[in-house]
Amino acid sequence: MTGPRFITFEGIDGSGKSTQARLLAETLMAQGNDVVLTREPGGSPGAEEIRQLVLTGDPDRWSAETEILLFTAARRDHLEKTIQPALAAGKTVICDRFADSTRIYQGATRGDLRAMVDQLHSLMIGREPDLTFIIDMDPETALKRGLARKSGEDRFEDFGLPFQETLRHGFLALAQAHPKRCVVIDGNREPEQVASEIAAYA
Amino acid sequence: MTGPRFITFEGIDGSGKSTQARLLAETLMAQGNDVVLTREPGGSPGAEEIRQLVLTGDPDRWSAETEILLFTAARRDHLEKTIQPALAAGKTVICDRFADSTRIYQGATRGDLRAMVDQLHSLMIGREPDLTFIIDMDPETALKRGLARKSGEDRFEDFGLPFQETLRHGFLALAQAHPKRCVVIDGNREPEQVASEIAAYA
Ligand SMILES: Nc1ncnc2c1ncn2[C@@H]1O[C@H](COP(=O)(O)OP(=O)(O)O)[C@@H](O)[C@H]1O
Ligand SMILES: Nc1ncnc2c1ncn2[C@@H]1O[C@H](COP(=O)(O)OP(=O)(O)O)[C@@H](O)[C@H]1O
Ligand SMILES: [Mg+2]
Ligand SMILES: [Mg+2]
Repeated sequence: MTGPRFITFEGIDGSGKSTQARLLAETLMAQGNDVVLTREPGGSPGAEEIRQLVLTGDPDRWSAETEILLFTAARRDHLEKTIQPALAAGKTVICDRFADSTRIYQGATRGDLRAMVDQLHSLMIGREPDLTFIIDMDPETALKRGLARKSGEDRFEDFGLPFQETLRHGFLALAQAHPKRCVVIDGNREPEQVASEIAAYA
Repeated sequence: MTGPRFITFEGIDGSGKSTQARLLAETLMAQGNDVVLTREPGGSPGAEEIRQLVLTGDPDRWSAETEILLFTAARRDHLEKTIQPALAAGKTVICDRFADSTRIYQGATRGDLRAMVDQLHSLMIGREPDLTFIIDMDPETALKRGLARKSGEDRFEDFGLPFQETLRHGFLALAQAHPKRCVVIDGNREPEQVASEIAAYA
């Protein structure tokens, strides 16, 4: 490890982000690193409250624009209260989803929102991860995994397979556009196999 | 009255905004107009939920930047769900505080935030009122009036007299910068006197 780093996991629902974020945190800690494992939306007390507003309730509770503002408010709080203090203290931060999720999910809902998301990001957030793992896999398999879960935080979960296909291609295009910080990982293998490929990069 | 209009009330705490917004709504309704009386932060179910996040709790619960994002999210929801539908239906909308409050309050907290507030506004809100009444008065007198109230929504209420002086001058400068839509009203008179001057403009 060479100094503090900010590592994020991205990919479609059920691709294994939370699983792999946890496994990487365990590996890095076992190697003696100070690690903070966090997630979005949420990751700080204020951001978790905003998470509740965004992820629960009717699918049409908020317009896409209001949603983007709420995600950005949560991200700003998370960055200030959790991520930046940890990096400043020399820790490694591993985050399950970050700004790329907003870019891809909101961009998939309505293409014209992508520019708005990017402008908001540069105005209010600025920071990009040092390293992003994009876990790629077949949405049908991923969807079957995801169906095992029930959290009540399901405002985004019923968009179906074509939506997940759009997200998949969005994430792959993002990786191509940012080859320096993004690594595409094949998620369609046993968790331990995926984890050891990831650990080799991190 | 010539067509739908969007009228806002601005000014320091205790200057009489809520009182005058209500009196103007009554006057215009008595003249046979369809009027929607609303307020910020809040004014729609979603925005009222965001209001609770912003106005309650510790004064340092949110950074100024996160606060600006939450106010803008609430404003976007209020605009989409309450203000625009009312204007589209030919009604007059009277709003107790709007974007100018964010400009002046957050700008008074830290001067460098003013540009951020303005950029966020043009990116996510866009709309300005057709007519803004800025109720001007001595902060000491206004503060005494305000002390009669107790709402629990007091995150902003303990900044004291020098802060209110800064706000007062911020609102007056705003009126000078936007003479077409802003009218400065002397609030240091009986409510009925203030109301009849306002009604003459509206
Ligand atoms: N490589 C894998 N193979 C099979 N199942 C997996 C794999 N990785 C994760 N899972 C399971 O699939 C579900 C979704 O994984 P999760 O890590 O929560 O994905 P995400 O956070 O990307 O939505 C969980 O039930 C998890 O245990
Ligand atoms: N012109 C006035 N003279 C004296 N008291 C007033 C006047 N206008 C309002 N008040 C009282 O002062 C307090 C603050 O008025 P309010 O309309 O709530 O101000 P704001 O909404 O600007 O904070 C209320 O108790 C109100 O009844
Ligand atoms: Mg997950
Ligand atoms: Mg009031």
